[in-house]
Amino acid sequence: MGPVPHVSFLTDYGLADGFVAACHGVLLRRGVTALDITHLIDPGDVRRGAAVLAQTVRYLPVSVHLAVVDPGVGTSRRGVVLVTPGGLLVGPDNGLLAPAAAVLGGVTAAVALAARPGVPATFHGRDVFAPAAAELAAGTPPTALGRPVDPAEIVLLPPVLARVSSPEVRADRADAEVEAEVVLVDRFGNVQLAATGDLLAHVGLVPGQRAEVRGAAMAADGPLDLPVGVTFGSVEPGELVLYVDSAGMAAFAVRDGDAASRLGLAPGDVVSLRPRRARSDRGSWTSR
Amino acid sequence: MGPVPHVSFLTDYGLADGFVAACHGVLLRRGVTALDITHLIDPGDVRRGAAVLAQTVRYLPVSVHLAVVDPGVGTSRRGVVLVTPGGLLVGPDNGLLAPAAAVLGGVTAAVALAARPGVPATFHGRDVFAPAAAELAAGTPPTALGRPVDPAEIVLLPPVLARVSSPEVRADRADAEVEAEVVLVDRFGNVQLAATGDLLAHVGLVPGQRAEVRGAAMAADGPLDLPVGVTFGSVEPGELVLYVDSAGMAAFAVRDGDAASRLGLAPGDVVSLRPRRARSDRGSWTSR
Amino acid sequence: MGPVPHVSFLTDYGLADGFVAACHGVLLRRGVTALDITHLIDPGDVRRGAAVLAQTVRYLPVSVHLAVVDPGVGTSRRGVVLVTPGGLLVGPDNGLLAPAAAVLGGVTAAVALAARPGVPATFHGRDVFAPAAAELAAGTPPTALGRPVDPAEIVLLPPVLARVSSPEVRADRADAEVEAEVVLVDRFGNVQLAATGDLLAHVGLVPGQRAEVRGAAMAADGPLDLPVGVTFGSVEPGELVLYVDSAGMAAFAVRDGDAASRLGLAPGDVVSLRPRRARSDRGSWTSR
Repeated sequence: MGPVPHVSFLTDYGLADGFVAACHGVLLRRGVTALDITHLIDPGDVRRGAAVLAQTVRYLPVSVHLAVVDPGVGTSRRGVVLVTPGGLLVGPDNGLLAPAAAVLGGVTAAVALAARPGVPATFHGRDVFAPAAAELAAGTPPTALGRPVDPAEIVLLPPVLARVSSPEVRADRADAEVEAEVVLVDRFGNVQLAATGDLLAHVGLVPGQRAEVRGAAMAADGPLDLPVGVTFGSVEPGELVLYVDSAGMAAFAVRDGDAASRLGLAPGDVVSLRPRRARSDRGSWTSR
Repeated sequence: MGPVPHVSFLTDYGLADGFVAACHGVLLRRGVTALDITHLIDPGDVRRGAAVLAQTVRYLPVSVHLAVVDPGVGTSRRGVVLVTPGGLLVGPDNGLLAPAAAVLGGVTAAVALAARPGVPATFHGRDVFAPAAAELAAGTPPTALGRPVDPAEIVLLPPVLARVSSPEVRADRADAEVEAEVVLVDRFGNVQLAATGDLLAHVGLVPGQRAEVRGAAMAADGPLDLPVGVTFGSVEPGELVLYVDSAGMAAFAVRDGDAASRLGLAPGDVVSLRPRRARSDRGSWTSR
Repeated sequence: MGPVPHVSFLTDYGLADGFVAACHGVLLRRGVTALDITHLIDPGDVRRGAAVLAQTVRYLPVSVHLAVVDPGVGTSRRGVVLVTPGGLLVGPDNGLLAPAAAVLGGVTAAVALAARPGVPATFHGRDVFAPAAAELAAGTPPTALGRPVDPAEIVLLPPVLARVSSPEVRADRADAEVEAEVVLVDRFGNVQLAATGDLLAHVGLVPGQRAEVRGAAMAADGPLDLPVGVTFGSVEPGELVLYVDSAGMAAFAVRDGDAASRLGLAPGDVVSLRPRRARSDRGSWTSR
């Protein structure tokens, strides 16, 4: 990879201390500008960091991504560079980078960063990862920064749940249902699930249909009955909708409202979704 | 307009998701750098977005301004480009851009952005507006992005209240009073009104005088009596003052304190202001 | 000093108004890019602003630092440029700049910014300090912006407490103790003291030892007994540790937790630290 002028940058450092600026300074001193993704990942929330990074990298023109959500800093966890067809990822080997690596085409090689004697033990963003990212941006090959490791050894987060239950029981898919974990809640309260839009369509949950939604954590007694829309504009203000979001994932929204609060859902909760069967005495919901 | 290297950028996307970075990436991929105004407009608060944008654009060296506070995304509201003597504005046609357009010299032409088939329905900042802003920054004429529309058709926000009552009743203006709506509360709790400093001066509210202030929403029983100053430095720590702020607007401040909390005022509240009449038995307030 | 392309920038302006962007615009109009340190210093918290600035400047490649935490704006406090071997500092003369100046090698000359007639009284960041910083970045000598003043006249904050008590009473230092003020609490709840790591070592508080910690404000009845570690990774999750942080200062942390909440400590609180004396009936703590 030749030199690149920018490195993307995601952390849980917050914006009220000087931590982000110190890393910017380390990069800039080497002629590299940071393109900030976010620094407001909750402290130590590796899962959210991984999800935000994975959904953003495809839109960034840069090819070196620096991410540090690192509750294990100061322990023996190692730092890594992941090489993918779409660019390089640098950060702690704790699962943070792997989902983004998958988006960028998968890990084709990995390097464990060599320890640097004399480096302070608690601010690896500034003292280890930013210098490494700057070197990669300058065109240094990853193998110059440490020893190659088997990509299969890279730490992965526990997989998020997203599956179709009973898809083959009946040819008409009448009992097919999607079970999916909540991955992200955004600023607007939109609730993104681990299920892709394709998975929704596979069980017949397409715009114009209605969905039955169940979830142990949900703030509702029985199953919810809500429309499948193209967007939250498909429903009236204040109404819930199931749709495929801008990342291609199944999501709940309330038009001009907050679906996460309404439904009582948070990352890690699991919901099940199935097409609502039209009953003859109530007419077809598909006419909506 | 020739090519420009920067586009200013204001949204309600927040800083904790990857939304802002995705838009930065879309711009940067086209060689354009974003100059962030703020991304912390409350979700859907078009009025505040419009006010912050209008007060900031005059200080920015850029000539393409991208703003997205867009509760109507996913509905039929259209996107627009407003052409002004001071630059171009791009965003939803919901009133967000018009006050800034007025600051930049008024709308001389407007273009409704053409729909792009296949664009996801819910993230127009990334998929519609940022690409349009990048094209404008590259020198593409606005008319290449859609069809011209009558500037008179552009959606406006309801006007904010700022008026002089009874200005002509008495030659001495003894009953003249300014009624004005609260437009913005800033981080320091300073309360900006829709009335200009000129309007204050018109009713005799100039430094050295004292003002009587009334407002239904105000946290006070009777009218407040407070000095008119050049700055919050005109009063002692902890004291209220009426002054003309750095945007040229009438404002309340508490030196080293929070006027919005003290007065119980929020955007949309209305106050009336009049010069306090000096009483012979109390001497003149103008000696302050 | 020759021209530089960047100016670092720290304020208490927050990120929700257009204040920071207006200053960015003033700089960019003069061809200078801002490198943001933070804008989330609490309103008027000069001490925290000074501490964050001082700890960050050494990592920044820029040589003009603009800082505005300025509760005295609109009063007679003056603006200054401090000249140091490591660069220039611009801002209000209220103690904000001095600790960073010390880090950069000390003040070798100082200039009081000349008043500019007609400048609005309440937004000196935009109207006074950013223009001055831009001129300095362009290579204008500080003396062109005002009159030289004696560096000894520059306003200083009250010194923070950090001292060794009774260091010479006993040759074995058995009664030696460090008294130190809390300087910063960061996003992770780590509590940084005014004592350097060298001061800790001077009284025998080195990794492997245990410390007795007392403080009037601390959320504990008696003295705390906690290990001295190299990093928070030296203890188990949830445990307290005393260590030397990435700025070289004594600090408390809770691994995967929030030491400030645990200890009930905030900036300005004072704690005392001494080595815990091993008791024969309990064995040595140094074996940990």
